[in-house]
Amino acid sequence: MKKDLYIVKVGGAVVEDESKLSSLIGSFCNLPGCKLLVHGGGRSATSFAERLGVESRMVEGRRVTDEAMLEVVTMVYGGLVNKNIVAKLQAEGINALGLTGADLGYMLSDRRPVGKVDYGWVGDVKKVDASVLSDLIGRGVVPVLAPLTHDGHGHMLNTNADTIASCAAAALAKDFNVTLVYCFEMPGVMKDGEVVRNIDKSVFEALKADGTVSGGMIPKLSNAFDAIGSGVRKVLITDVNDLSGHNGTTIQ
Amino acid sequence: MKKDLYIVKVGGAVVEDESKLSSLIGSFCNLPGCKLLVHGGGRSATSFAERLGVESRMVEGRRVTDEAMLEVVTMVYGGLVNKNIVAKLQAEGINALGLTGADLGYMLSDRRPVGKVDYGWVGDVKKVDASVLSDLIGRGVVPVLAPLTHDGHGHMLNTNADTIASCAAAALAKDFNVTLVYCFEMPGVMKDGEVVRNIDKSVFEALKADGTVSGGMIPKLSNAFDAIGSGVRKVLITDVNDLSGHNGTTIQ
Repeated sequence: MKKDLYIVKVGGAVVEDESKLSSLIGSFCNLPGCKLLVHGGGRSATSFAERLGVESRMVEGRRVTDEAMLEVVTMVYGGLVNKNIVAKLQAEGINALGLTGADLGYMLSDRRPVGKVDYGWVGDVKKVDASVLSDLIGRGVVPVLAPLTHDGHGHMLNTNADTIASCAAAALAKDFNVTLVYCFEMPGVMKDGEVVRNIDKSVFEALKADGTVSGGMIPKLSNAFDAIGSGVRKVLITDVNDLSGHNGTTIQ
Repeated sequence: MKKDLYIVKVGGAVVEDESKLSSLIGSFCNLPGCKLLVHGGGRSATSFAERLGVESRMVEGRRVTDEAMLEVVTMVYGGLVNKNIVAKLQAEGINALGLTGADLGYMLSDRRPVGKVDYGWVGDVKKVDASVLSDLIGRGVVPVLAPLTHDGHGHMLNTNADTIASCAAAALAKDFNVTLVYCFEMPGVMKDGEVVRNIDKSVFEALKADGTVSGGMIPKLSNAFDAIGSGVRKVLITDVNDLSGHNGTTIQ
């Protein structure tokens, strides 16, 4: 019988604020059974880039990643943010292991082809070695995934954290009953000051049509439906205090 | 029967120079059997610290590590240097995994007590969980150790790479026939333009007395003898092109 697995994705706004991070660590530790954490870190990357005199350039919400910016994100995501989380989980008795896609070669990407925009060293996920993550989780390890992959030719690639979470979730769905949790600053998808408790495809279309869901939330919800389509049992959109999603939005 | 294990320690001067790093990767991949890499990165840390306006202060060759410097070393050692090496090893078909002491909790330190100097967030190694490293190596993984540990209370600690290498070597000596390789810019310990091929304790005393060995080499050689005392089979001091030590200095 498949075990349950929570895959929690948290953005920079949570992991870069000590008090929110502390709430996250507490809530995450309280989740029952197997779990895995995926983190962002964009605000720290932007802030360190600025201090280093490296210009941040975003196109459609994605960071253009030249050599200098690749150094920044590799340092900030793979080092500072990742190890800070790992050390805090270890302090709570969670056997955490920080990983980029290069570590154990668990996630391989292609550098994004140059189209209208040259995003530079940005990766589009090509292959997930689910057995690497499954084996670790099976031995009680909690993987902590930084938003970085590699190209198999010796280069790291900046890779969107939501994508890493949904690719990992889809790949692990054959071994586990996966609940994918997108942790936000809001308690869920909001409409008229209330959380929309359930979203299926027809509700999604209606929410897009009336403007409730717009901007960056559209690709997030599209990702969520892709994950469901790949065998993920449930996607939750919730905040840091409610990771098991009792009061958040459920996508099925 | 115990398997052979090479533990190679390389300093910042090698890993921060693309051409030397490339030589290192080539030589390292050619070592037979089980292996593990420990890296430094001090020059990059100093350079990024300067760019970030964080002052580098060294006392007796050790970096004083305040909060701001801890961020720098966690980024540079745990992120930039470590992931660059891991990606390059993966490109050569080596199943590398970058680790700090916090990852899988393999190495725990105490923050160094304040004496004449307050070194800040610097760790003195307290406990090595050799089984974590043994299990990984037994499954064909090549651990790549950054010079960072944790305190078990959620904080990372800056930790000398030579110390990490010798502690890991001593801890793994019960499971493997360990050869500990200190990789330098020189082909070995030099005297009158020639490599001193073998050093035992009496030769060490003579080399100290005549000034051949001085400064930072004294603690390195003392570490080497400590490792031998802990069951490590052999310590080599050699350069990046000769990791198996045919032309370097052997300490036994």
